[in-house]
Amino acid sequence: IGSRRAARTLWFLILMSLCLFITVCRASSPQEEEDSAMQNIVTEKRAEESHRQDSADLLIFILLLTLTILTIWLFKHRRFRFLHETGLAMIYGLIVGVILRYAVHVPRDVGTASMGCFVNISPATLLVNISGKFYEYTLKGEISANLVNDVQDNEMLRKVTFDPEVFFNILLPPIIFHAGYSLKRRHFFRNMGSILAYAFVGTVISCFVIGLLMYGCVMLMKQFSQLGGDFFFTDCLFYGAIVSATDPVTVLAIFHELQVDADMYALLFGESVLNDAVAVVLSSSIVAYQPQGDNSHTFEVMALLKSFGMFLGVFSGSFSLGVATGVVTALISFFTKLRDFQLLETALFFLMSWSTFLLAEACGFTGVVAVLFCGITQAHYTFNNLSPESQDRTKQLFELLNFLAENFIFSYMGLTLFTFQNHIFNPMFIVGAFLAVFVGRAANIYPLSFLLNLGRRYKIRSNFQHMMMFAGLRGAMTFALSIRDTATFARQMMFSTNLLVVFFTVWVCGGGTTQMLSCQRIRVGVDSDQDNSMGLADGSERRSTKQESAWLFRIWYNFDHNYLKPILTHSGPPLTTTLPPCCGPVARLLTSPQAIENECQLKDDDSDLILTDGDINLSYGDITVSTDAMGAHTNSGRSFSGTATSDDLDRELAYGDHELVMRGTRLVLPMDDSEPPFSDSIRNLRM
Amino acid sequence: IGSRRAARTLWFLILMSLCLFITVCRASSPQEEEDSAMQNIVTEKRAEESHRQDSADLLIFILLLTLTILTIWLFKHRRFRFLHETGLAMIYGLIVGVILRYAVHVPRDVGTASMGCFVNISPATLLVNISGKFYEYTLKGEISANLVNDVQDNEMLRKVTFDPEVFFNILLPPIIFHAGYSLKRRHFFRNMGSILAYAFVGTVISCFVIGLLMYGCVMLMKQFSQLGGDFFFTDCLFYGAIVSATDPVTVLAIFHELQVDADMYALLFGESVLNDAVAVVLSSSIVAYQPQGDNSHTFEVMALLKSFGMFLGVFSGSFSLGVATGVVTALISFFTKLRDFQLLETALFFLMSWSTFLLAEACGFTGVVAVLFCGITQAHYTFNNLSPESQDRTKQLFELLNFLAENFIFSYMGLTLFTFQNHIFNPMFIVGAFLAVFVGRAANIYPLSFLLNLGRRYKIRSNFQHMMMFAGLRGAMTFALSIRDTATFARQMMFSTNLLVVFFTVWVCGGGTTQMLSCQRIRVGVDSDQDNSMGLADGSERRSTKQESAWLFRIWYNFDHNYLKPILTHSGPPLTTTLPPCCGPVARLLTSPQAIENECQLKDDDSDLILTDGDINLSYGDITVSTDAMGAHTNSGRSFSGTATSDDLDRELAYGDHELVMRGTRLVLPMDDSEPPFSDSIRNLRM
Repeated sequence: IGSRRAARTLWFLILMSLCLFITVCRASSPQEEEDSAMQNIVTEKRAEESHRQDSADLLIFILLLTLTILTIWLFKHRRFRFLHETGLAMIYGLIVGVILRYAVHVPRDVGTASMGCFVNISPATLLVNISGKFYEYTLKGEISANLVNDVQDNEMLRKVTFDPEVFFNILLPPIIFHAGYSLKRRHFFRNMGSILAYAFVGTVISCFVIGLLMYGCVMLMKQFSQLGGDFFFTDCLFYGAIVSATDPVTVLAIFHELQVDADMYALLFGESVLNDAVAVVLSSSIVAYQPQGDNSHTFEVMALLKSFGMFLGVFSGSFSLGVATGVVTALISFFTKLRDFQLLETALFFLMSWSTFLLAEACGFTGVVAVLFCGITQAHYTFNNLSPESQDRTKQLFELLNFLAENFIFSYMGLTLFTFQNHIFNPMFIVGAFLAVFVGRAANIYPLSFLLNLGRRYKIRSNFQHMMMFAGLRGAMTFALSIRDTATFARQMMFSTNLLVVFFTVWVCGGGTTQMLSCQRIRVGVDSDQDNSMGLADGSERRSTKQESAWLFRIWYNFDHNYLKPILTHSGPPLTTTLPPCCGPVARLLTSPQAIENECQLKDDDSDLILTDGDINLSYGDITVSTDAMGAHTNSGRSFSGTATSDDLDRELAYGDHELVMRGTRLVLPMDDSEPPFSDSIRNLRM
Repeated sequence: IGSRRAARTLWFLILMSLCLFITVCRASSPQEEEDSAMQNIVTEKRAEESHRQDSADLLIFILLLTLTILTIWLFKHRRFRFLHETGLAMIYGLIVGVILRYAVHVPRDVGTASMGCFVNISPATLLVNISGKFYEYTLKGEISANLVNDVQDNEMLRKVTFDPEVFFNILLPPIIFHAGYSLKRRHFFRNMGSILAYAFVGTVISCFVIGLLMYGCVMLMKQFSQLGGDFFFTDCLFYGAIVSATDPVTVLAIFHELQVDADMYALLFGESVLNDAVAVVLSSSIVAYQPQGDNSHTFEVMALLKSFGMFLGVFSGSFSLGVATGVVTALISFFTKLRDFQLLETALFFLMSWSTFLLAEACGFTGVVAVLFCGITQAHYTFNNLSPESQDRTKQLFELLNFLAENFIFSYMGLTLFTFQNHIFNPMFIVGAFLAVFVGRAANIYPLSFLLNLGRRYKIRSNFQHMMMFAGLRGAMTFALSIRDTATFARQMMFSTNLLVVFFTVWVCGGGTTQMLSCQRIRVGVDSDQDNSMGLADGSERRSTKQESAWLFRIWYNFDHNYLKPILTHSGPPLTTTLPPCCGPVARLLTSPQAIENECQLKDDDSDLILTDGDINLSYGDITVSTDAMGAHTNSGRSFSGTATSDDLDRELAYGDHELVMRGTRLVLPMDDSEPPFSDSIRNLRM
């Protein structure tokens, strides 16, 4: 009774205090500055003042996040689904941005001095001799000449602007790692072929389609002399690459809540996770193409090949680095008994995952990509070696980091629409970009789906295709890639346009997900348990259809299950049973006593996987889902006695596949089975 | 069998790879620098190179931490207790420091330019016009004139040197917050008087004793002309303040493992936690005293009063800020039903705790102190409103952050002994400092214990005093305070000396804890369960002795229990029963329906407290401790029906106290009861 009123009061109180805080804190600082100017100003005072200002700026973001959390709780509490937390974070960011921009305008007199210097290159460190004392300055970046006056005026707005590298080096890694770590591997591996096609071929198609369309648009703008600066073809391609990174976090959250078909979820999630990686590497390859040929920006075969080679090199390098550290972590947790000390175990896991990023960056690869594959490897192998407490801890830790980083990025996005200094909004370019993004997505999804359906036994139906088309949101990755470099005219226009693309897709496409789901008649409330029991019921029949499943996946699965899992984890059959007898001594050496002990109580990662779902569900628990974590666990208990000699490998393969079905992996479940009558629940869900 | 050999191989492999990595990564970078120098160098390339170098530097620390974790696992596994993880981290840091210093010496040609400037003050931002392009530089700090050449030579060593503010703004807050959050409140409040005395009076005594002794030492050095620069009295006092912050993390870990007497633990832990806060504020007050009187460094009453006022102001400001945000968090979690969404709840808790730090820093108070009191408040109130999952999550999260930050600081300490550029090791000063630290600790513990024993019914026995004397380790706080400012000669000498003090105390005093415990015949293996059951058995007898417990504590406890707890948490009796009837409407408004529901199943923070122990124990679980978390829980279930009218407040107070005893709070358990025969376990524990 009183509690609700009190909650509302509290909420407004926080909102008000935020506004007040911004005003006071902004207005008060120059006052103190003057005070300190009265005395003999020492550098320390200035540094202290700057530190205080930094704290206050960071505090604005923390309060923004707090507000977002409270409001999103209110939304979840009342089951509003039209606005996701990231969309809300953007709105709050916008509000604070408006306040900062228009309500508080204090031209701050922070000492900025201009000086000429007669060196050829800009040094990284500068020692300045100021009246006998030496001060050290570090290079922050280049400023275009026409903005030098702006710098001096708008120090205040510049202060709330973070170094763009923060996004790449601090905020993106946990998001991407979490995506990899929480990948639904069962459904992911099942649809691996399609996902890889969408992610690699699709992103490249999308990049080039958007690039070409934008080039046309830019040409047209030149005709109408609407273009205020240079915009080369490589810029267009670069724009295509950065805007091809989809981030359907909003859609996936709703999918998860409504329990949309798991294959639909896996397709969309897998594609979005991988195409981030592809887009990052692609964009850096395009940048690498640029400075060739004395900035002539003409087409050149050698440069193209070099760029392509760089793409392959960086991608495979990052991939193998990520997998390598994942495997090393698995080996460490396999050979040590760290699981007795959960804190050490969690710390090690965290450090190894972080070191992947640093190692990749230090080697010149892409840290974000390495972290993604490290996450997948950790989930696939290391996770099985962790103690149950550490499994929970690591999942919760990365879930929290992901949540904070994501909401921070989105609220910063909202803020930056008003506080960023060099926005260039060109209506024609914006219209062109929206069109190109739409066409690019369509050129990715529809033709590829058609081609994939030729090979797939269980077709990707047209409503799934429409849904994937609709779910092509742009998010954190596009933003981080756009803000990374805003030095030239082209990049500034891209950045401004991308902000609008992100806003539109997150609010409109994200908000319309439930409507779209019901409009496309996609099944919701699918209980994976149910499917499993079906799979178990007519297992013998399924067994005959297993041959249709992707051969690539089958070979990989068997290799992984028989050799990699036993070597790297405590789960899986002991090596002594899977290796040919001639390798007996090696097998015995590599098999831990625990694995032999565990022989009769196999624990499969797939069941862990479902456990993950259960957990996520628990933390968002609007709707209770009955997970089959324990069920699958006990099911997988018996039924594997591993008899593998080199001569009956074939039987083994078949047996392994049977195993798959037995444990409810739904490898071969047809997708075109008769749909259940369209459930009414979705109509109720729309408020 | 093979597993152990493999583990050892793995371990050496990592060690080797670290060394190799350092060498390769250090040696390779100038090569690439040259390559890029061949072409037209763009600023971006330089920034990229610098970013890669930064990644590599950070990676060294991550690998160091990984190595520490693996080794400490080995130690825990084999039950070596003579070296704590922090001590080990220092050793590894030392090794890497030696390698960096002597094995790899690549004079790197990173462009550093000197230039003269004709401005009076050093600007915070510098715009440099380099051949037509504008570059922005930010102020990093002042460099003493005689080191300007060093800067250019030893860029490499300077690179692995972090900005000292990192320690204060990133690494210390989680450590201090965790200390506050995991404070054993039951025993803490019981011994609050003594702890406050040690922390406030003791630290001030220690500061002045050490300051005076050091001043004598410095005078003596001047006589022998051993002093190479200025060293004023205020510097001596500053040294006294920073070296007075004790950090017995090693000792406490061993105490916890061996289950040393809980009061001993509470005294030591409480003192160390609070004296950090006192030392921080004290040192900043002393610095504030310094620049008065035109740098004459003479005694001045006004300046002293101002410093004292500043001490009080900053301390009370930080204190109230910390408590305030804690209370706000408690209110938010009280009025919202955030507990349905654990992720949001944990995120909010984390953000609010972090905002305390930022708010304090933005207001000019001390963030670290605010964070400490915020932690205590969060543990006391907010913790009770959290869902069980969030209670676990927050505890685990801060435990992990604490672990990482602590080990990072200690390994950095080891590293910095060799990589820091401006070490000044003066044998006389070092000997003087060790002596002063010893005398200062003695002047803190023994006289105060004597005075406290006059008032305490349950004396602090002499073996406890010796143990506290011995456990005066210096650690992270002393280091962070010393490294914060190393501009002058005096500060550099302090820093170098403090490093040695930390090394000595952590290795020698930390390593000798078990020996000292057995030598002082302090009880180990104390089961709090046992004490509780005793407390319950003769509860009626205890009730008569309750009058002896500190009156201050009793008043506070009753106020807290009857008014604050019901307002801020879902535990405690409903307000409607504790407030006088005239306040009925107010009480009903402030009482949540849940609290009324909960009336019959009260949950006390003390039981949560014990739960905390159980958890910590779980994660270090060498020895299994049977906690009475569940037991206390059920005990506290009935027995409170809250009948409070204003006229029988007296009865209520007595009743509240009885409650205390009933729930096993051991308020009045005598400490001088007959000792059990000295257990043999400690002898076994020493290898």
